[in-house]
Amino acid sequence: MIDFTRLAEQVMLRCEQLGAITQTPGIVDRRYLTAQHRQANNLVAKWMQQADMAVWQDAAGNQWGRYYSSDPHARSLILGSHLDTVPNGGKYDGMLGVIAPLAVVQYCADNGIRFPFHIDIVGFGDEEGTRFGSTLLGSRALTGRWNEDWRLLRDENNLSLPEALSEFGLSFDRIQDAALNPDNVAGYLEVHIEQGPVLEDENLPVGLVTAIAGAKRLNVQVNGMAGHAGTVPMTMRQDAVAASSEMVLAVESVATQFGIVATVGRFDVRPNAVNVIGGKVEFSLDIRSEHDHKRDAALQLIEEVFRDIAERRHVDVNWQMTHHANAVQCDHYLSHTLGQAIELSGFRKVSLPSGAGHDAMAMDAICPVSMLFVRCKGGISHHPGESVTPADVQAGLQVIHQFLQSFSPDK
Amino acid sequence: MIDFTRLAEQVMLRCEQLGAITQTPGIVDRRYLTAQHRQANNLVAKWMQQADMAVWQDAAGNQWGRYYSSDPHARSLILGSHLDTVPNGGKYDGMLGVIAPLAVVQYCADNGIRFPFHIDIVGFGDEEGTRFGSTLLGSRALTGRWNEDWRLLRDENNLSLPEALSEFGLSFDRIQDAALNPDNVAGYLEVHIEQGPVLEDENLPVGLVTAIAGAKRLNVQVNGMAGHAGTVPMTMRQDAVAASSEMVLAVESVATQFGIVATVGRFDVRPNAVNVIGGKVEFSLDIRSEHDHKRDAALQLIEEVFRDIAERRHVDVNWQMTHHANAVQCDHYLSHTLGQAIELSGFRKVSLPSGAGHDAMAMDAICPVSMLFVRCKGGISHHPGESVTPADVQAGLQVIHQFLQSFSPDK
Repeated sequence: MIDFTRLAEQVMLRCEQLGAITQTPGIVDRRYLTAQHRQANNLVAKWMQQADMAVWQDAAGNQWGRYYSSDPHARSLILGSHLDTVPNGGKYDGMLGVIAPLAVVQYCADNGIRFPFHIDIVGFGDEEGTRFGSTLLGSRALTGRWNEDWRLLRDENNLSLPEALSEFGLSFDRIQDAALNPDNVAGYLEVHIEQGPVLEDENLPVGLVTAIAGAKRLNVQVNGMAGHAGTVPMTMRQDAVAASSEMVLAVESVATQFGIVATVGRFDVRPNAVNVIGGKVEFSLDIRSEHDHKRDAALQLIEEVFRDIAERRHVDVNWQMTHHANAVQCDHYLSHTLGQAIELSGFRKVSLPSGAGHDAMAMDAICPVSMLFVRCKGGISHHPGESVTPADVQAGLQVIHQFLQSFSPDK
Repeated sequence: MIDFTRLAEQVMLRCEQLGAITQTPGIVDRRYLTAQHRQANNLVAKWMQQADMAVWQDAAGNQWGRYYSSDPHARSLILGSHLDTVPNGGKYDGMLGVIAPLAVVQYCADNGIRFPFHIDIVGFGDEEGTRFGSTLLGSRALTGRWNEDWRLLRDENNLSLPEALSEFGLSFDRIQDAALNPDNVAGYLEVHIEQGPVLEDENLPVGLVTAIAGAKRLNVQVNGMAGHAGTVPMTMRQDAVAASSEMVLAVESVATQFGIVATVGRFDVRPNAVNVIGGKVEFSLDIRSEHDHKRDAALQLIEEVFRDIAERRHVDVNWQMTHHANAVQCDHYLSHTLGQAIELSGFRKVSLPSGAGHDAMAMDAICPVSMLFVRCKGGISHHPGESVTPADVQAGLQVIHQFLQSFSPDK
């Protein structure tokens, strides 16, 4: 009988220990290629070694541990997530996906249990993109898809990415060394806090991720005519605030109709004065779905409605796409196995898409991927209030353990 | 036969000359109690003297000229407006209401025409309130309604209003000397650019003002719940941006329904990020009508709708009133006479309310008031693009001249 309660306590403790490694005292703030990144890697490496894992750091600064299979020619099942955080972030987003599988491997090592596959645990150096503005630098290095343009990325102190790599003892020119041979990888499983309210609403500790939503982001400009709030009759206005408000409601309505999510989170008015009719509004549109065709159909309708509103209100509307990522579907076999593991562990299986991006998006380029969500309090993440319960962590550990028992690298 | 074309040319020229007096080179910027205020007063006083007027500056820094009646015991008809501007303002807002009547008086003086009333022309020192944040300081001094608290008002250089008055050679303690005895005042006529698009739309050079709208201003806070744009399903959101957008449209709809104007000109979102559902919005509401009861009924309905929207969307809404001014009705006799003057001058009479505030609002406390609007290009004011045509100025001069011929101080 495995003492999952004790294992969960260890995970909670280790998340606290990692959370204490911060470049900004008083908050959790740990970014790519910093001294704190190295400290976190070293601490995780120490824990990996305690679990009988071979450890190494790759050419992109990702921390690895391998729990060898009894078969030396086996392929690897990779479990992992990221070790970096946003400034003033939480202690679980990313870290839980490294520390939780590590606890299960620790148990296996303690009990001499081996698998017909290597278990590789990876702590990615950068997922959040906080330091250099480009996300998933760690996992994208594994796929061999680093962009030559990233040589030009600079942090807030104007240090370039190549310079920062060099300070860390790495080289931009050797990044390719981090790329994996897909033939050696049997799959990827990422455990992550949900960052949303669905599991809490369902009263469940864990959930099966079906897909990672594909996102498009637009920057929308609405140009009306500024005017005196007292002297221009309602019928003669070209009010950019009112027109944009109608567009916000259209976004909400179309998203609901299509069963996707769409958000206007930024809304800037000029001149933004109490007694002046808004002349210009610039707002953001973020639209996501696990199904790209659904997202694109919704976006097309939104764009049509935007044009109609603009025409009717005699304002101009323009937009530019600022971001585009396609949805990533979780692998059928991995998800099926993971779903079974959830049920075998005694939990009702609920499936949900991930609206947020994750390292699994990058990993999809080289291997089948799957994700397990763990409930987090209030759906809060990227915030000191980020919180998971030991009981939910324990549920996650049970599912990981069950998954490892069922998983076959040859399916 | 009066050469109104020549008089209008003189008005245009003088507006240029006044516009050249600025505290900020390159733009029009002339504020209360500055060296440029004194320069403007002196120039206007010179023109007044040329028109056979007695001139003086009152205890609040307003510039006066009196064209004496043939009857030494006559009451005064006051014509005027303000000589101060907003920063980067235009050359006609205010100034036209001083310079245009002056041109008519100049003509009367040149031709020995006297009236059964004194014609007092006043150039108010402050209407815009740009320097000390409180508007109508000039005209309110005439009404004896300066507020003792205004001792505490300070300009952007931290100079207090009493200090600025003292630098100008005046005294806060002597402001009461500027107050007029209502018994001596037969009425007030203010000529002003429309600052709106109605006359342009009606294709008319001048219009009769029925009332100056009463305004209320509110600061509205909508508190929802910030959340991840990708992970919170549409049905579980408490989106402050969407809720506020619905409120903006409600404001527009209720205002249209009541035939008044209402504006949301300021709209600030927190955290205002592309990938975060808006947690909090703060927006302004400016609502105006020439009829206070109509404005208040509309506002009551708006407030009810705000509450309904907030309840339905599970957000909180709060508001505070930040400004309240009642409407001022133009005097029946003065307006009737002015309307006749418009028609006798050969123009179709169109009546419209003033949505903007004017010195006439303050003057209403001591005498009957009336206003004549002159068309301005695109309804633009408080901007270098502020523009009136010589032909429209000429129309205004004709109407003023006609009004002076018809006006009886005993009605």
